Amino acid sequence: MTGSAAGPEIERLIQLLAKLPGLGPRSARRAALTLINKKEKLMAPLTQALGDALKAVKTCSSCGNIDTIDPCAVCRDKNRDASILCVVEDVADLWALERAHAHKGHYHVLGGVLSALDGVRPEDLNIDSLVERARNAQVKEVILANNATVEGQTTAHYITDRLENCHVMVSRLAHGVPVGGELDYLDDGTLAAAIKSRRPF
Amino acid sequence: MTGSAAGPEIERLIQLLAKLPGLGPRSARRAALTLINKKEKLMAPLTQALGDALKAVKTCSSCGNIDTIDPCAVCRDKNRDASILCVVEDVADLWALERAHAHKGHYHVLGGVLSALDGVRPEDLNIDSLVERARNAQVKEVILANNATVEGQTTAHYITDRLENCHVMVSRLAHGVPVGGELDYLDDGTLAAAIKSRRPF
Repeated sequence: MTGSAAGPEIERLIQLLAKLPGLGPRSARRAALTLINKKEKLMAPLTQALGDALKAVKTCSSCGNIDTIDPCAVCRDKNRDASILCVVEDVADLWALERAHAHKGHYHVLGGVLSALDGVRPEDLNIDSLVERARNAQVKEVILANNATVEGQTTAHYITDRLENCHVMVSRLAHGVPVGGELDYLDDGTLAAAIKSRRPF
Repeated sequence: MTGSAAGPEIERLIQLLAKLPGLGPRSARRAALTLINKKEKLMAPLTQALGDALKAVKTCSSCGNIDTIDPCAVCRDKNRDASILCVVEDVADLWALERAHAHKGHYHVLGGVLSALDGVRPEDLNIDSLVERARNAQVKEVILANNATVEGQTTAHYITDRLENCHVMVSRLAHGVPVGGELDYLDDGTLAAAIKSRRPF
């Protein structure tokens, strides 16, 4: 019971909405009511959009990005520099870099991080396919854009080892003060990294 | 553009998800990615549930509740006391009272509050149908469970006037200290109401 005092169809809708990140049982009820109140304007289009996306969505067989075409639009884009591969943990990170227009090369989505705790081993991630892509003579550089977490950095170290004989330059994102950030609120690790990597002004 | 770097189907899904209460553009992206990553377990069932609810959902022609049957389950329930009508602003309030098992009579959903600012007039709410229901000799009491906001109370006063010749008792919810609430954090209005309506211990 989700506390809707309504039929089983509405109960089920609320239960499923509550599984979305950012929605709990209470906000799922509110979302369901909003949908029902805006049947024509929101509920019907959303049903349609979900069905369309369900049919259309594919994982790019080259980089692991999500798109409606395979290879994805990024991999197809002739204007992008195929000699640079940017390694990200998941598709959300790829989207974030694309929004920032920060990278003009290709990507490689790992699909997670190595984690002894969660039992994620190297063979569970798209690392073999990365090594294979990096062996291609066209690829000159691999940028490791893992998250700056312990697990992200462990994964980055592991990948660096695996890429040793691939004749590519391996780089990682810079650590430092976030643009717009105030020193007072930063952690010691970031401050130490920012001092260590200081640059001439 | 919602910043997904993906096909139009996914863009559209994110745009629609962002219209749900509690989800902004960023959390809509996260929700869409979660859906895509759990295609079989979440996306397909949610699509199905939305379609089912879209077809099944009805507004009760008697009380205005949302259900998959008309009259709704509450109005059909023979064990409920049809002599008491509880007037609520919207279906979410009805669900809240049902979750609390606080009311064993029937309901009447107004569909909003009177508001000069938003141009909501008495004829925009289900007030005429309430007066008609209250005229039924079976109905003895109307409980006004409007929100304790200025607009909610204005609406309650207007309804009280309209029910004058219906030979029903009109009551309203008690104001006071919420159960579990601390006096120190309560506003002056609530404290004054709680003192005024004090009861023998």
